Amino acid sequence: MSKGVIELHAAVLAAASAVGKKEGAGPLGKCFDLCDDTDRFGAKSWEGAESEMQRMAFNTALSKARLRDTDLGALFAGDLLNQCVGSAYGLLAFDIPYFGLYGACSTCAEGLMLASAFVTHGIFDRTAAVTSSHYCAAERQYRTPIEYGGQRAPTAQWTVTGSGAFIVGNAEKRSKKATIRRAMPGIVRERGINDANNMGAAMAPAAEDTLVRFFHATQTRPSDYDLIVTGDLGFEGGSILCDLMRADGYPLGNRYTDCGQLIYRRYEQDVHGGGSGCGCSAVVLASYLLPKFESGELSRMLFLSTGAMMSPDSIKQGQNIPAVAHLLEITSGNLL
Amino acid sequence: MSKGVIELHAAVLAAASAVGKKEGAGPLGKCFDLCDDTDRFGAKSWEGAESEMQRMAFNTALSKARLRDTDLGALFAGDLLNQCVGSAYGLLAFDIPYFGLYGACSTCAEGLMLASAFVTHGIFDRTAAVTSSHYCAAERQYRTPIEYGGQRAPTAQWTVTGSGAFIVGNAEKRSKKATIRRAMPGIVRERGINDANNMGAAMAPAAEDTLVRFFHATQTRPSDYDLIVTGDLGFEGGSILCDLMRADGYPLGNRYTDCGQLIYRRYEQDVHGGGSGCGCSAVVLASYLLPKFESGELSRMLFLSTGAMMSPDSIKQGQNIPAVAHLLEITSGNLL
Repeated sequence: MSKGVIELHAAVLAAASAVGKKEGAGPLGKCFDLCDDTDRFGAKSWEGAESEMQRMAFNTALSKARLRDTDLGALFAGDLLNQCVGSAYGLLAFDIPYFGLYGACSTCAEGLMLASAFVTHGIFDRTAAVTSSHYCAAERQYRTPIEYGGQRAPTAQWTVTGSGAFIVGNAEKRSKKATIRRAMPGIVRERGINDANNMGAAMAPAAEDTLVRFFHATQTRPSDYDLIVTGDLGFEGGSILCDLMRADGYPLGNRYTDCGQLIYRRYEQDVHGGGSGCGCSAVVLASYLLPKFESGELSRMLFLSTGAMMSPDSIKQGQNIPAVAHLLEITSGNLL
Repeated sequence: MSKGVIELHAAVLAAASAVGKKEGAGPLGKCFDLCDDTDRFGAKSWEGAESEMQRMAFNTALSKARLRDTDLGALFAGDLLNQCVGSAYGLLAFDIPYFGLYGACSTCAEGLMLASAFVTHGIFDRTAAVTSSHYCAAERQYRTPIEYGGQRAPTAQWTVTGSGAFIVGNAEKRSKKATIRRAMPGIVRERGINDANNMGAAMAPAAEDTLVRFFHATQTRPSDYDLIVTGDLGFEGGSILCDLMRADGYPLGNRYTDCGQLIYRRYEQDVHGGGSGCGCSAVVLASYLLPKFESGELSRMLFLSTGAMMSPDSIKQGQNIPAVAHLLEITSGNLL
């Protein structure tokens, strides 16, 4: 509550992920719940595939938690598609009050923050957060027309085809389930970057801003956490963030990583700047990071999803890229 | 809390609106705080004008409440533009944690619901909700290419150029300020309408669904309220809603109206189906409805913002239009 920190107490009851071929072939491939090697998920369009991926991920999370849709009080969801149609169509089949979000690639942490706040304060017993991105739908929307043989910039990132779904509820006693304990919502920051092929650089100052405000407000330091992980700064943005944090007196050191660096094999999979997209941090959190709390490998983590809030039009109009980073402190359930 | 109803207690400390020429010339023209007869708000692009309109409306609300941006804990904002750039750029100047929303034209009620929940549960002392739409930016995005001399359909609605901003906080004792007391978040519904020129028809079933669930859960009836007002069903959707509610056993009668019906002179201003857009319900609530609580003209109202969640792509792909309606119960502050 003080200085922008939100105190929370919400257990992640279940999490699930659905991904495409490239993600399935990456270093975390075996972690994900569902993988469709056609990237189509049985749909006729890429936008339809993204919706279907959300529906599958959320259905899987529901069945892991042994819940039905009507057991949930609210659903917080969003994606990168214009008018967030990935979520609106993907989750239409479920009979749950729906809060649509747009936080670009910060949607995973934004949704989990709101879902956790609703549970912490007893507004509803259980809520969910769902998000997604699809490489082909994003290319069509953000980068059409794509020139034949055009070289991708070294700092350009690869949109993850993936959807992550999370169900949160009251923390049970002595549960090992990861618990969301504090959050720091991000402030939109813009530091002069207008290159849509270098979104990591645009987003790094937003992540720095949120981290510094959080460390200051909570009187903690990077060394108090097992892991500090950002959503999709990728290789370029991640390295900028480390420089910025060192200059601020909070060196992150080797406890820092980024979901966009983890999800692909950088050179073998030809991904240049690393992974990005709402689905990037969502599937890595759901299927790689959260299980480490149950296994005891992690007990205290800072997780930030980072979003670049520009549109293709705002870029063409010469505007700089504003960005936002939402932070969650996640701890092992048996801590405290 | 029970059956989907959220109990709230948040006073609207200040509300402000900025509108364009057509809105200023309409029947509510004198109510609005700011009106730019050029629709440009000093910006070079229509998208920039929408951002600037948000900045002005929010600044006006802050100054009415005698607050600075840093006095607010969170800002809930969204608009119709791709990637919600109206809000991201418009509110960039303010040093406030930012939750981006996408609820199409339901954003006003969605934002106020979340802002009120954060205040009610003491997460922050004061929060804000801001939204906007701009006729020219919306035409460019949704309806380009516009054929020369093309006839608009009789059910087509006119996107309101306007932005509404609201600051909510703890209710003071014996204050006359309007207070948000209960809310019912909407479930996304789709009933087979795929005509983007008849969004009122697509949204009416969502409004019906939320209203019926609310009346049922709270054991109230339409006659318990002075006014029941929807966001932008317009003339077609409003009349469909009245038919649906009558069939459900909850006739709305003459206490029902719609912001999209109120904001323009239907025939003189050539608006066909009425007003629409995120800004429609926001400016009518901010500058026409809320002041009626302070004057004592209204003491208990149901306010619903209604959103059609399709995109131009989903329409071209032949998909039906899903819709959502979020409800707020607003009462006079000295009630209870």
